[in-house]
Amino acid sequence: MKVWELGEFGLIELIARTVGKAKRRDLILGIGDDTAAWRTDKSIQLGTTDILIQNVHFTLDIATWRELGWKALAVNISDIAAMGGTPSFAMVSLGLPPETEVDNIVDLCRGMKEIASKFDVDIVGGNISRAPVVIIDVSLIGKASGTLLTRSEAAPGDQIAVTGYLGLSAAGLKILKAKRKLDSKTTAFFREAHLRPRPRVTEGQALAQHGVKTAIDLSDGLLGDLKHICKASNVGARVWINKLPIHPLLKSTFKKESRGLALSGGEDYELLFTARSKIIVKLRNIMSIPVTVIGEIAADKQGQVTLLDEHGKAVKWDETGWDHFKSPGLTKQ
Amino acid sequence: MKVWELGEFGLIELIARTVGKAKRRDLILGIGDDTAAWRTDKSIQLGTTDILIQNVHFTLDIATWRELGWKALAVNISDIAAMGGTPSFAMVSLGLPPETEVDNIVDLCRGMKEIASKFDVDIVGGNISRAPVVIIDVSLIGKASGTLLTRSEAAPGDQIAVTGYLGLSAAGLKILKAKRKLDSKTTAFFREAHLRPRPRVTEGQALAQHGVKTAIDLSDGLLGDLKHICKASNVGARVWINKLPIHPLLKSTFKKESRGLALSGGEDYELLFTARSKIIVKLRNIMSIPVTVIGEIAADKQGQVTLLDEHGKAVKWDETGWDHFKSPGLTKQ
Repeated sequence: MKVWELGEFGLIELIARTVGKAKRRDLILGIGDDTAAWRTDKSIQLGTTDILIQNVHFTLDIATWRELGWKALAVNISDIAAMGGTPSFAMVSLGLPPETEVDNIVDLCRGMKEIASKFDVDIVGGNISRAPVVIIDVSLIGKASGTLLTRSEAAPGDQIAVTGYLGLSAAGLKILKAKRKLDSKTTAFFREAHLRPRPRVTEGQALAQHGVKTAIDLSDGLLGDLKHICKASNVGARVWINKLPIHPLLKSTFKKESRGLALSGGEDYELLFTARSKIIVKLRNIMSIPVTVIGEIAADKQGQVTLLDEHGKAVKWDETGWDHFKSPGLTKQ
Repeated sequence: MKVWELGEFGLIELIARTVGKAKRRDLILGIGDDTAAWRTDKSIQLGTTDILIQNVHFTLDIATWRELGWKALAVNISDIAAMGGTPSFAMVSLGLPPETEVDNIVDLCRGMKEIASKFDVDIVGGNISRAPVVIIDVSLIGKASGTLLTRSEAAPGDQIAVTGYLGLSAAGLKILKAKRKLDSKTTAFFREAHLRPRPRVTEGQALAQHGVKTAIDLSDGLLGDLKHICKASNVGARVWINKLPIHPLLKSTFKKESRGLALSGGEDYELLFTARSKIIVKLRNIMSIPVTVIGEIAADKQGQVTLLDEHGKAVKWDETGWDHFKSPGLTKQ
């Protein structure tokens, strides 16, 4: 059955059913009224929005609808994680070509529901429109308990650290686009990195609790996102390229290319943060995922990222991260 | 200058400058970090999202960019109004073809800023993407002080009332599309109705304060939106078609067609509500815009709207309101 056969309001009912009953106790009104409504206490609320557009952020020959549902919510949860917060309520704007299969929308909702349940998020509203391509725009509300991880508190003397591994998502996209044949375990590993990113919510909260003040999630790529921190904090950054956390599978599959993927490949949704050395040592002990120091914040060269090789010599690097209008090629992917 | 020449981050800076400094005291972090952040107290928060897509919700030969900015925010503010709430923080997802003129985006932001200032809303975040057509998706947060105007509390014995006039927005669209020549004052009146709707925030709050429990804003058209109330409340509705508030200019410009526009023309963003007669009498006295009783809620014919003529005889009417996938024609407008 096509979306146009079911109609807008039939589709809304189906989505509400598929997404299932809301579970959060602070919710008053979910899907089906003019707005959603929820109770708050004296706290800090967080709000973010991020959109996925067909043929810009994804193509339907690569991603399944279920993966799209997961990812659309994941990229927003990651923003809340990068503030040290806890996500709570999501609203979803869907733009759909009328010929879209209703079954695909059910899969999309299942992917959203899967990650929403995992992170205690309720999907509480949204809207559906006809559109020339598939558009999935999620806005997400969250809560923070005091300390916020902003982009603007990096200070000279801070070390720069990152959770997890770099470049795996971009590598996954390359493999999927080229339909590169690898053993099924390796393919699944990279596919997962690109299409089912794991937002670092627990990790972001741990950062905030242990005195970290500056963090960003890696969506545009390490160099691009680190530059955002440098600009917002009026500092410079030095990155030691031999310290980048490159996964053994990235190294073995992409050889020399792996360093470039780690530096500029976007959408890893790991956390990049800066803090004094002793804070990072403590965090490495308590975290269940790798935390790697990759450089340091400096007072000079404000707004810039300098790459250094193992001898401390500056390395040139042209690509700096993703720009939606300036980046080469027709699609992000 | 084109959007692709300025680039994503140049554009974000320009938008932040054009939108101007945030004014609300409860805001902690606005544009420029992973999320926006604001303080809350023990209250009810409201959240809504609504999207405008080029060639679905608007065409650029009819609407100016400034009007689009106004309208994109207005349709969301209207949802908050329909709950009896006060809007506070907006986030904006923009999808733009790279060839878009930067000046157009400045105008768009001016339109958003104009209505945001009027309603004490801060624009606190968002994102920008490349897109095949212009997409403006706004999500809006608000606050309610106790009573919520839901869709589900209409009860037999309630009267049905509406603020302002019906059908003016759809009439405006017809005039603009047909490039119909009318005197400039009349043209401006209808253009304004379609492109610069005035959300009824004060009125929604007055409803909530005076004991109204059920309201919806008119976006899909009177019949469609009243049906939403009937379904959510498990009641039927009787509408007296000779009681519809039809503006003299609509009557004189559209003659016989005016009734159809009032019944099915969408996007008036007036408030449709139900309440006991004495509450409505009180509201008519305190409100500065017309409040018209147009029908009554009944226990029978649940989920249905029945039209009655001046003799109480049922009238047939085929169009019931806007459905994004089922409605005829290629565009909403």
